[in-house]
Amino acid sequence: MPASSDQIARKRAPRMRDPESTRQKILHSAFLEIYRRGFQAASLDRILADAGVTKGALYHHFPDKAWLGYAVVDEVIRDHLLDRWLGPLAKGADDPLTSLQQAFRIRAKSVQPHEVELGCPLNNLAQEMSPLDEEFRERIETVFDQWREGFTDAIERAKARGIVRKDVNSRQIATFLVAAAEGSFGLAKNARSMEMFRSNMEALAMYLDTLRVPSRLRGRA
Amino acid sequence: MPASSDQIARKRAPRMRDPESTRQKILHSAFLEIYRRGFQAASLDRILADAGVTKGALYHHFPDKAWLGYAVVDEVIRDHLLDRWLGPLAKGADDPLTSLQQAFRIRAKSVQPHEVELGCPLNNLAQEMSPLDEEFRERIETVFDQWREGFTDAIERAKARGIVRKDVNSRQIATFLVAAAEGSFGLAKNARSMEMFRSNMEALAMYLDTLRVPSRLRGRA
Repeated sequence: MPASSDQIARKRAPRMRDPESTRQKILHSAFLEIYRRGFQAASLDRILADAGVTKGALYHHFPDKAWLGYAVVDEVIRDHLLDRWLGPLAKGADDPLTSLQQAFRIRAKSVQPHEVELGCPLNNLAQEMSPLDEEFRERIETVFDQWREGFTDAIERAKARGIVRKDVNSRQIATFLVAAAEGSFGLAKNARSMEMFRSNMEALAMYLDTLRVPSRLRGRA
Repeated sequence: MPASSDQIARKRAPRMRDPESTRQKILHSAFLEIYRRGFQAASLDRILADAGVTKGALYHHFPDKAWLGYAVVDEVIRDHLLDRWLGPLAKGADDPLTSLQQAFRIRAKSVQPHEVELGCPLNNLAQEMSPLDEEFRERIETVFDQWREGFTDAIERAKARGIVRKDVNSRQIATFLVAAAEGSFGLAKNARSMEMFRSNMEALAMYLDTLRVPSRLRGRA
């Protein structure tokens, strides 16, 4: 791949002049290293080598390895994950339940081999770090909360439109959906099976149909 | 607690005479250490101290740390987990779907604080070790397979009795249930919430109702 003009510009500019770009490079390399090896086994030396920055630059931006890890959750994993799962819910406001089903079906189509091999980066960190580091646990919980809130909101909107039954507990179902999605990553990761992940996403989409007001009652609910 | 006669007998007998008891003590201590800290961070010294055995005894029974870990999966985690999840399915053969719902509701009641803090030991090992060690991955997969098979069998029996709809894909649903159960442990672990775990178990039990043949069709399906 030929170097882009952006890459050339970056090479020409002295590093000191673009601290935000350096910070982003460190975060991106740290995300990859933590995703591949877990947080505890992640090597700062490999992160520095991959990012092409000095130890001094790293410590200029992050006080220590833990804070680098927290920033990976707050600034890399969160946006990426919420975009993926909540992005499809903004559209198709006519039927928020169908949009939610779409979110699972899109995820079934978009899943990449490395995601089946390595799992969900948020879930990995939750399982590894939540018993060991309260700062990690709280940051991860904030992301899970926002994810659940997005799903709860979609189900509530579907209830308001008479699409979902009034007796459905939106928050309970939203929490269940997030758990099932993360469990699907976890099971597919051990099975090394994209097919299993896709089958689970479809099972979730079909499950959502069971929340619908039967069509003969639509409008009366 | 007063020492049982078994414990007294064990103390009197020289260790060499009861290699199976030594092996079990090592396995139990290894299980606890791995559950608390993960496999990679588990310390053989702590396992030996907890089991009260020498390094020589350990290496007499297990060639290395990895094989000790494999034995923990094969001999401790598997039986415990399959007992818990598949035990309730043996009973109540009249309505295998209700037995399956019971398995989730019993789990909701029986869950212990340390399980919410530390998660499911099988899921923890799967997330940590499956990308790193093929032997671990395959052993863990064997347990997941048996778990799925037990659920598949219950759903198939319910189909044969006209309780579950014929169009239900038993294996797909069984896989989904296992993923959702493991995801529920994972999410509750990060949230430190028994309530969340219980709510997810109830959501799964309610979900199973949606697989039933509507009662007016029972017998005709």
